[in-house]
Amino acid sequence: MLTTADLTVEKINSLLIAADEFSKGKVLKPTKEIFVSNLFFEDSTRTKTSFDIAERKLGLQVVPFDVTSSSVNKGESLYDTVKTLQSLGVNLLVIRHKQDQFYKELKEIDLPIINGGDGTGNHPSQTLLDLMTIHQEFGKFKGLKIGIVGDVKHSRVANSNAVALRKLGAKVYFSGPEKWFDEGAIINGTYLSIDDLIKEVDVLMLLRIQHERHDEKMKISLNNYHKKFGLTLEREKTMKENAIIMHPAPINRGVEIHDDLVESPRSRIFQQMKNGVFARMAILKDALESKGFEFL
Amino acid sequence: MLTTADLTVEKINSLLIAADEFSKGKVLKPTKEIFVSNLFFEDSTRTKTSFDIAERKLGLQVVPFDVTSSSVNKGESLYDTVKTLQSLGVNLLVIRHKQDQFYKELKEIDLPIINGGDGTGNHPSQTLLDLMTIHQEFGKFKGLKIGIVGDVKHSRVANSNAVALRKLGAKVYFSGPEKWFDEGAIINGTYLSIDDLIKEVDVLMLLRIQHERHDEKMKISLNNYHKKFGLTLEREKTMKENAIIMHPAPINRGVEIHDDLVESPRSRIFQQMKNGVFARMAILKDALESKGFEFL
Amino acid sequence: MLTTADLTVEKINSLLIAADEFSKGKVLKPTKEIFVSNLFFEDSTRTKTSFDIAERKLGLQVVPFDVTSSSVNKGESLYDTVKTLQSLGVNLLVIRHKQDQFYKELKEIDLPIINGGDGTGNHPSQTLLDLMTIHQEFGKFKGLKIGIVGDVKHSRVANSNAVALRKLGAKVYFSGPEKWFDEGAIINGTYLSIDDLIKEVDVLMLLRIQHERHDEKMKISLNNYHKKFGLTLEREKTMKENAIIMHPAPINRGVEIHDDLVESPRSRIFQQMKNGVFARMAILKDALESKGFEFL
Repeated sequence: MLTTADLTVEKINSLLIAADEFSKGKVLKPTKEIFVSNLFFEDSTRTKTSFDIAERKLGLQVVPFDVTSSSVNKGESLYDTVKTLQSLGVNLLVIRHKQDQFYKELKEIDLPIINGGDGTGNHPSQTLLDLMTIHQEFGKFKGLKIGIVGDVKHSRVANSNAVALRKLGAKVYFSGPEKWFDEGAIINGTYLSIDDLIKEVDVLMLLRIQHERHDEKMKISLNNYHKKFGLTLEREKTMKENAIIMHPAPINRGVEIHDDLVESPRSRIFQQMKNGVFARMAILKDALESKGFEFL
Repeated sequence: MLTTADLTVEKINSLLIAADEFSKGKVLKPTKEIFVSNLFFEDSTRTKTSFDIAERKLGLQVVPFDVTSSSVNKGESLYDTVKTLQSLGVNLLVIRHKQDQFYKELKEIDLPIINGGDGTGNHPSQTLLDLMTIHQEFGKFKGLKIGIVGDVKHSRVANSNAVALRKLGAKVYFSGPEKWFDEGAIINGTYLSIDDLIKEVDVLMLLRIQHERHDEKMKISLNNYHKKFGLTLEREKTMKENAIIMHPAPINRGVEIHDDLVESPRSRIFQQMKNGVFARMAILKDALESKGFEFL
Repeated sequence: MLTTADLTVEKINSLLIAADEFSKGKVLKPTKEIFVSNLFFEDSTRTKTSFDIAERKLGLQVVPFDVTSSSVNKGESLYDTVKTLQSLGVNLLVIRHKQDQFYKELKEIDLPIINGGDGTGNHPSQTLLDLMTIHQEFGKFKGLKIGIVGDVKHSRVANSNAVALRKLGAKVYFSGPEKWFDEGAIINGTYLSIDDLIKEVDVLMLLRIQHERHDEKMKISLNNYHKKFGLTLEREKTMKENAIIMHPAPINRGVEIHDDLVESPRSRIFQQMKNGVFARMAILKDALESKGFEFL
C-alpha cells in the first residue's frame, strides 16, 4: 500500500469494512509466526505507535528497528537496509521516509511494504483512518463537502485524502495561505476563502503547519496565522450544524485551531487516532493475506 | 501512583505483601490483553528496564515509545502525547519527566499513570523497592534509624523515601554538604554530621550526586567529596553491626561510596535492583486492578 | 561466546549442525520464561536485528536496551550496567562495544555474555554464519582457499574468521592496502596481490572499509580504492568457476565491490545474512543450555 491513487473504490470499501469489524472487537491471529518491522526515518508518535499496537493486536512479532542506531549511520542505503531485513526473515515493513516516493527504489524487492508517509507525497494509512472517521459520522461519502485547510503544499495528508475522497464522490475544497497553494495536477480542487469554506463544508480537515519542510521561515506570526487561516472560536460558530472538525495531529494548539476547540463536541481528532489502530489492522491483514499468510 | 505522600500505610503494606509474593515466584497473567507504555523523558537504565521486565512478567503488552523519535520533536506537549496514547488504546503509562509534578497537567486524563520520577519531586516506585529491601532485612520499620546522605536537595529519592519512612514509624536523619540541605516543608528531618550519622543508623542510604540538576559546578572535587561526605573504608568500620548500605544507583564509585564497599557484605545495592522488579509488578497490578482489569 | 579462539573444532561443528537444523525449520521453545537483552554500544542493523529475530524465534523475552537513553549517559560503567541487568533478572546478554575485549572487565559476572563484536577484536557470531555459508557451498573446510581482502587491520571479522578457518583446515590469504596489513600474531597469513589472490581462492571475503575506526583520512579516493583493491567487473571474471563472494556488510557499493556484483550469481552476501539468524539461534541455545535452561 503505497499511494491512495493505487486504491480502487472496492479495495477502500473492503478495508473500511475490515477496520470497522476490528473496531467492534473482532480478534484475528495468524496461523504461523509473522515478523514485521517499522522503519521510521522521520519522527512519529501516532503513526508509528498505532502501527505497533495494530501489529500486536494482530499477533505479529514486531522487530524493533531504530534508524538512529542502525547501519544507516555507516552510509547503508534504504535499498540495502530493506533487502537486509528481508534476508533476516522480516515478512512486512512499514516505512516512513522524508524522500518523496522512497518506494520507487524498492520496487524490485518482493516484500509487502506499507507507506507510513513519504515526504510531501502520500500517507495512505492516514487517509484510511480519515475515511473511516467520516464514514462513521455520515454513513457515506457521496455528496459530502470536505474542506482541507492550511499547509496544503507540504502536506502528504492533503494529497492522499483529496485523491481518495474525490474517488468516493465527495467534493473537496481547499483554503490556506496563497504561497502554500499547490497548483499541481493532483490537487486541483477549488480554493475558497477560509470564511466561505468553513460555512460550506461537512468536514473541516485542518492541516498541521509543516515547519520542518519549509525552505524559508514563515513570514506571518503564528498568532496572525490563527487569525487569518485558523479555526478561531468565531469561525467555529459559522460551521454547519452537523459539521465535524478533523486534524491529523500533532496539533499546534492556538495556531491551526483554537485550544478550546481541540476537545470540543465537533472535534473528531482523538477519534481519528482511535480509528487509526483499526484502519492499520485492516491494512496489515490485507497486505499479509495478499502474500499468502492466513489469519483465524 | 504519583507521590508517596498519597500512599496510606495500609496501601504500602498491601503493596509490600504483593511484591514479596512476586519475589517468591508467584505468577499472574491478565484475563485480557493489556497495553502499557513507558515514557521516559530522562535517561534511565534501572527504572525503565525494571518496569519493562515487570510488565512482561505480568503478561502485559509493552508498546515501545522512544521520546527522541516521537512527535515531541515537532513540539507536541506531554498532555497531547498522553491523550494520543490513550486514544490508541494504551491502558497504563509509566512516565519519567524532568518537570516536577508533570502529572498535574495530566489530571483530567482518565488513565492510570505511574510516576517513574518527576524532576526533583518524587520517585515512589523507588521508595517501594527501598521499603521492601529494608523490610526483608529488619522485618519492621518502627524504630529504625535511617540516614539519607548526600545531594538531598536534588534527589527525588530522598524526598519520597523520607515521607514514607516517617509514615511507617522510622526515624530519618540527613547529612551531606550544607548547600544541598533542603529546608522545605517535606524534608525537615534532623541533619547530623556524616560521622555522627553513620554510627547511629540501621540503614545508610547514599544518594547519587545529581550533576545534571545542578545550576553551577560543584566547588569541591569528587575526591574531596568522598573524604568529607562519602562512605569511606574508615567510616564503614564505625557502622552498627547489622547496619546495611543502600544506594538508588547509578553509583559514582569512589565518590558517594568507596569502590570496595559497593559489593561488600553490608551492601544491599544490587538486592535493591532485584527487588525493583517485584515492587513494580505489585504497583502495576494494583494500578490496573483499580481500573477493573483482572489477573489470574 | 567471546572469541573464536576459545571455540574447539567440536564446538564449531555442533553449532553448525544446530544452525543447519534451525535453517530447515526446527522449532524449539524454552521450558520456562527467559529474559535476554542486546546491548549495542555501536551502530548495527544486521547483527542486532538478527540476534533479535533469533531470540524471538527461540521464544525468548527480549528486553529493550537503548544505550543512548540509559544511565550510561550519567557515567555508569559497562560493569555496573551489566551487573544491574543481571540483578533485574536478565538471563543472557549480547554485547557490542567499541572497546577491544570489553568482556575482560566482566569476567567476574556469572552471566552468559555473547560477543556481538568488540572493537577491532572479535566477532564470533559473524564467523559462525560465515562458516555456515561456506559449508553450505562446499560441504567442507579442509583444503579450501579463502581470501580476505581490504581493511584487515580494523576488521574484527578478518581476525575472527582467520582463526576459525585455519583451525578447520582452510588456507587463508590476505590482500589490501599495505597500511592496513596487520602484522600481529593472530593475522599472520600470506599476503598476495589482489589480482593473484582473486584467481586463487574458493571464497573471496571482502571487508568493509571501517572509516569510523581510522585515525586519519584515507589517502586514496574511494574510486581509486575500487580500482586498486576492490572487486571490479574485470577481476570477477578471473575467479575460479565455483568461487563465491562474501561480505559482512554493510557494503560500500562501488568501493569494495562493483555495484553489479552485489546480487550476482556468485554473491552469497544476502545468504550470509539469512544464515545469521540460524547461526545466532544455535549460539543462543548453546549458551543458555550451558546454564541449565532447557528447550523443547
